[in-house]
Amino acid sequence: MLDARGQETLTGSAQSEIFQILRDGQPRTRSELAALTGLARSTVAARVDALLRAKLISPIADAASTGGRPSRQFTFDGTRHSVLGVDIGATHVHIALTDLHGTMLADIQESIPVADGPERVLGWVIDEARRLLTEHGTGLALRAIGVGLPGPVEHSTGRPVDPPIMPGWDRFDVPGMLSQALGVATLVDNDVNVMALGEHHDFWPDVEDLLFLKVATGIGAGVITGGRVHRGAQGIAGDIGHVWVPEAEGVLCRCGSIGCLEAIAAGPAIAARLNAGGMDVAGTQDVVAAVLRGDIEAIREVREAGRVIGRVLTTCVSLMNPSVIVLGGPISNAGDHLLAGAREIIYTRSAPLATSNLQIVRSRGGDKAAVSGASSMAIQHVLSIDSVEALVRDAA
Amino acid sequence: MLDARGQETLTGSAQSEIFQILRDGQPRTRSELAALTGLARSTVAARVDALLRAKLISPIADAASTGGRPSRQFTFDGTRHSVLGVDIGATHVHIALTDLHGTMLADIQESIPVADGPERVLGWVIDEARRLLTEHGTGLALRAIGVGLPGPVEHSTGRPVDPPIMPGWDRFDVPGMLSQALGVATLVDNDVNVMALGEHHDFWPDVEDLLFLKVATGIGAGVITGGRVHRGAQGIAGDIGHVWVPEAEGVLCRCGSIGCLEAIAAGPAIAARLNAGGMDVAGTQDVVAAVLRGDIEAIREVREAGRVIGRVLTTCVSLMNPSVIVLGGPISNAGDHLLAGAREIIYTRSAPLATSNLQIVRSRGGDKAAVSGASSMAIQHVLSIDSVEALVRDAA
Repeated sequence: MLDARGQETLTGSAQSEIFQILRDGQPRTRSELAALTGLARSTVAARVDALLRAKLISPIADAASTGGRPSRQFTFDGTRHSVLGVDIGATHVHIALTDLHGTMLADIQESIPVADGPERVLGWVIDEARRLLTEHGTGLALRAIGVGLPGPVEHSTGRPVDPPIMPGWDRFDVPGMLSQALGVATLVDNDVNVMALGEHHDFWPDVEDLLFLKVATGIGAGVITGGRVHRGAQGIAGDIGHVWVPEAEGVLCRCGSIGCLEAIAAGPAIAARLNAGGMDVAGTQDVVAAVLRGDIEAIREVREAGRVIGRVLTTCVSLMNPSVIVLGGPISNAGDHLLAGAREIIYTRSAPLATSNLQIVRSRGGDKAAVSGASSMAIQHVLSIDSVEALVRDAA
Repeated sequence: MLDARGQETLTGSAQSEIFQILRDGQPRTRSELAALTGLARSTVAARVDALLRAKLISPIADAASTGGRPSRQFTFDGTRHSVLGVDIGATHVHIALTDLHGTMLADIQESIPVADGPERVLGWVIDEARRLLTEHGTGLALRAIGVGLPGPVEHSTGRPVDPPIMPGWDRFDVPGMLSQALGVATLVDNDVNVMALGEHHDFWPDVEDLLFLKVATGIGAGVITGGRVHRGAQGIAGDIGHVWVPEAEGVLCRCGSIGCLEAIAAGPAIAARLNAGGMDVAGTQDVVAAVLRGDIEAIREVREAGRVIGRVLTTCVSLMNPSVIVLGGPISNAGDHLLAGAREIIYTRSAPLATSNLQIVRSRGGDKAAVSGASSMAIQHVLSIDSVEALVRDAA
């Protein structure tokens, strides 16, 4: 494209190339960028200036020079913009303010039941987000919000769809309310995808294929293929809590079907079996507490749940051939018992090649995986080609 | 980058952009290409000339002009280069010569047992390929070969690894032998991935997520996610023939394990049950023949196999959320009986949202899916950025 003075300018992918190259954090001079992209030095210089104005890159100390004019190096600088990660659980909300490197600058947690409805929950998020930004966001421009919700989310709109434990939230415009109040784009996904993203980003960034399984009041998976969240045709990939397992034959699930994985291996099912054996446990948290205090029956039941889950995961391993399976959620995190049961079946029942390099591990992110994944989702958005172009235009 | 005359030239992705834009088959003028890419008109003109020399694009009839110099349009032309697709099955070999649009120019089939070993089988492929090229390839330059093999293939080397029905082929350098004889790159994959690719390319090109299941002497799946073959960490994604199913409990599989899907739902297992009931069927082909002549017992057994397969596919549907499941291989293609059994279970046992837009269909490519997929694999390679750049350089 020729600009008004007849000089060549570039749009689209060629322009964005320079920022995408600098994102790896390695400092480079203008000459190195010209060589890497094949763009003219004048084009590179103009682009570097635009990225500097947009505060997306910074110059670093001059490179050692053997004489003549030293060559200045530039690198990605994510410390001048911020995002909010929001993890909304069944009974808690967790907000974190991070920069574009994912460094957490401040966070706050509160016990709020999601059943209180979107106005109350998101109202709290908005108030606390403003406070975090005022107290910890000086000099930082907020650029996006990422939200994880404990129910199915329509990917194209970011709205919850028929969420079973979220009364009042069905089709509520979560992105609309947050974006209007805080003035930036809002990305929404279900909590399991967000936890998978957080775990992948923080602990397995180089792994292409990872399966994250959350075992709590329900059971669900987050599927990472080719380094990205796989959502599938209707955006419900990973929804394996209601696959039929022979061990649950005859057991009614809360979804109305018979024989679901959740009906035998999730927190409430384990609690029910312990109660039938004479214990008095109210739900998932009581099961976790019993396991942690060493109750033999509770440990036995959790391990058996791990075996049933392992059987389903064996099919997942054969289909996807991941290199890492991460078990998360409160039941997985109560010692290594669920993990041991799952490993026993997966390593016994899978093809040798499928498990030769397969790691099956507990979540390392733990309670923080969801809020970290929500931040990562927002950062991915801010650093996308279109968003970077918009930041550059606004700074011009 | 500045060339010797101080003019700007482009390398890499910016250059390739023009060809990648023209690949959609829509004719465009140089001005339109300049506007779409943001590249200088002189750069576009030079690039168009290079692609013309490489015989990858052609000018088409001049666009209607309102006066002045008419603007010539250019479009992708795949008729000047060819690829070979090679489908090697347990007892047959099928070779097809196609152009870069995937149009089949000639093909030949022969009954050759893969157990005759690589020298005999690939020797026949080389002889017949040369004959096809001489008789039907005039004016076409052969650019690549795609091969599907009936066993596991190491993706990085294209060599078969421990293939159970291919004596003499273990770690044989299939790409090396074909490339040396025919002078072009050779891509190799297992037959199920190749069939999935053929079915996707020919009949479901706009579908992002597709699952192809082959039911024959063995059972295996080809997984398409985001429009591409998903191979997984060890390249064995889709290898679901040996997942445990309760219906096969106590049944010994040819792999040495107990309770595999194949041990109850593949051709030999169905044949064994029919024989136990007093019939005399030798294997998969006899089962197919019995079904096609309307034998009630054979139909009943195939439908029941479909149900068992459907149970495993239900987990796959929950995990991947595909929009299409294609059932292929001889057992699937013997009427709608396997399909009916699989549909019955998948539609009953999946979450409503997962099946609301899910199509479960028989293979449309049938016997030709594999050779077509092998050609597609070769074409994808020829039209990749690096390969196009090499063709342009060679033609300069």
